[in-house]
Amino acid sequence: MMVTHDREIDLVSRVLAAHGVPDAAAATQAEVLAEGDLRGQHSHGLQRLPIIVGRIDNGLTDPTAVPVARWVSESFLEVDGARGLGPVVAFDVVDRLIGRARDVGLAVGAVHNSNHLGMLAGYVERIAAAGQIGLVLTTSEALVHPWGGRRAMVGTNPIAVGVPTAAEPFVLDMSTGAVSRGKILAYARDGRPLPDGWAVDADGAPTADAGRAVDGAISPFGGAKGYALGLALELVVAGLTGSETGERVLGTLDAAAVCNKGDVFLVFSPEALGLSAVAERMGSYLDEIRTSPLASGATSIDAPGDRARRLRAERMAHGIPIEDIVWNAAEELLT
Amino acid sequence: MMVTHDREIDLVSRVLAAHGVPDAAAATQAEVLAEGDLRGQHSHGLQRLPIIVGRIDNGLTDPTAVPVARWVSESFLEVDGARGLGPVVAFDVVDRLIGRARDVGLAVGAVHNSNHLGMLAGYVERIAAAGQIGLVLTTSEALVHPWGGRRAMVGTNPIAVGVPTAAEPFVLDMSTGAVSRGKILAYARDGRPLPDGWAVDADGAPTADAGRAVDGAISPFGGAKGYALGLALELVVAGLTGSETGERVLGTLDAAAVCNKGDVFLVFSPEALGLSAVAERMGSYLDEIRTSPLASGATSIDAPGDRARRLRAERMAHGIPIEDIVWNAAEELLT
Repeated sequence: MMVTHDREIDLVSRVLAAHGVPDAAAATQAEVLAEGDLRGQHSHGLQRLPIIVGRIDNGLTDPTAVPVARWVSESFLEVDGARGLGPVVAFDVVDRLIGRARDVGLAVGAVHNSNHLGMLAGYVERIAAAGQIGLVLTTSEALVHPWGGRRAMVGTNPIAVGVPTAAEPFVLDMSTGAVSRGKILAYARDGRPLPDGWAVDADGAPTADAGRAVDGAISPFGGAKGYALGLALELVVAGLTGSETGERVLGTLDAAAVCNKGDVFLVFSPEALGLSAVAERMGSYLDEIRTSPLASGATSIDAPGDRARRLRAERMAHGIPIEDIVWNAAEELLT
Repeated sequence: MMVTHDREIDLVSRVLAAHGVPDAAAATQAEVLAEGDLRGQHSHGLQRLPIIVGRIDNGLTDPTAVPVARWVSESFLEVDGARGLGPVVAFDVVDRLIGRARDVGLAVGAVHNSNHLGMLAGYVERIAAAGQIGLVLTTSEALVHPWGGRRAMVGTNPIAVGVPTAAEPFVLDMSTGAVSRGKILAYARDGRPLPDGWAVDADGAPTADAGRAVDGAISPFGGAKGYALGLALELVVAGLTGSETGERVLGTLDAAAVCNKGDVFLVFSPEALGLSAVAERMGSYLDEIRTSPLASGATSIDAPGDRARRLRAERMAHGIPIEDIVWNAAEELLT
């Protein structure tokens, strides 16, 4: 089915209200889910709602939580998310960091005891819209095998980077896994073969059989380097937030455990640091790349964020495709 | 030929002294080159010496430079490298950042007007040895094509991450290019076919012909994601240091232009941030990964840095293989 953005926001808001989420928090969580669907990141879209609601109902997420934030030093904010909704905690932290970076050039936030952030793009977009440079790291359940291994020991640990330009911001938002778990489950359901490099089976052998991949592990993107990068991000986040690592990480894919992953936000204000015309310079450079000669067979060169922006505009105009089963599952949460 | 570590250090130190480099600076630069060769990163080893010396002789690098470092705020150090030798400037910055992070938990250094850093591993190892977490980013000449493009528009922009453990530190040091330019040149010289994914020809078509790759561009590691990551790192470094971007970056591969890339160092002290037992926890997690079940056909699971550490130990014991042509070129710089 096709739904408008307004209609998805309305449904999610009503569901969350029915489960005790205050209006402002519900609006934030609803926007983050709808943005996931608008940009084609459906694994961060409406299909997440049943787990979010289940966690609230089970007392694992407190939708009325007030995070406890403490400036350990001028530029470092330690945050206990108090089991709050991930996007609610995160946007509060981002806004504090933007303000502090405006004053002293740099602010870093380290969050524990919060819940799943959803798609990261929105956080770095908020930072870039303030004329600042942002990086966001977060960890997840172990879903990715180490290079040479077959057991999932590393999170899909995404990284997001936002940089202001004179026009639309640069927005990188990528997982260090080759693919999401949700996509492998969808391929398995549809009986479609997996592309090379996405996953291994239970023996650690690369497999195109999605059913076997479900019992195996997701591969890191880019081989050994992607494994190394994803692992580095897990260590950095755990080292700065005190969050759990590897197979001990729980609470973003289930409605049974307190969430013990961590989130790290880095915000820099070039202006406060004395650098001028950063947005203009970065925008010009990206335009040079976009207009550089195409490879044979290619039709365009994008900067990160371009494709999601086009898809978002098209879906705002013509509606968002949502699977019936996902919509119906969300509606059932109203009762 | 095989040379001992001491012999390589001795040769480099004598060459640098003969070109006006003070003893302490020569020792630092020599260690960084020798460490590159010890760990098999020969493109950051002795073969770099002729360019380093050429830059000094041409007045592009000032081996007696005193960098100008200024704390813009409590946690942000702006550094004008004053055209100094890259490793000399960088270790000075790293030491200042370690000291500041010890006091306030976090310190970031942004360096411009310095020279090539060489292998990054040593900088994050210094940070990890102080019980701190370090990230290093630096840019380079445009050598990598954007995804969908055929002209080299993005640097090989490496990232290094160091994390302390109870035993040896975690050390990630990786380029966002699939391979170094030096390796493609070596394959071309030997007439060997390139592995898939390393490079494209002048038309942007993937090629196994190293000779055609020399006229083309290096591919990003990991496809579109690696392109996006490398580009993000270039923007972050340029945005924080005021360094140049894309095809305007000069001065790490030539002896003709002032170096206008940038370097960013991020240092965090978990202890100063109130986090305990980080080294022990991270070490345990890495051991869990190393001892997790092997994939079929694999013989070991390494953490980043393990392989380089083994190679280093073996070469310290039995010598470093150096190509005759590289050694002879270095010796000629004595005269």
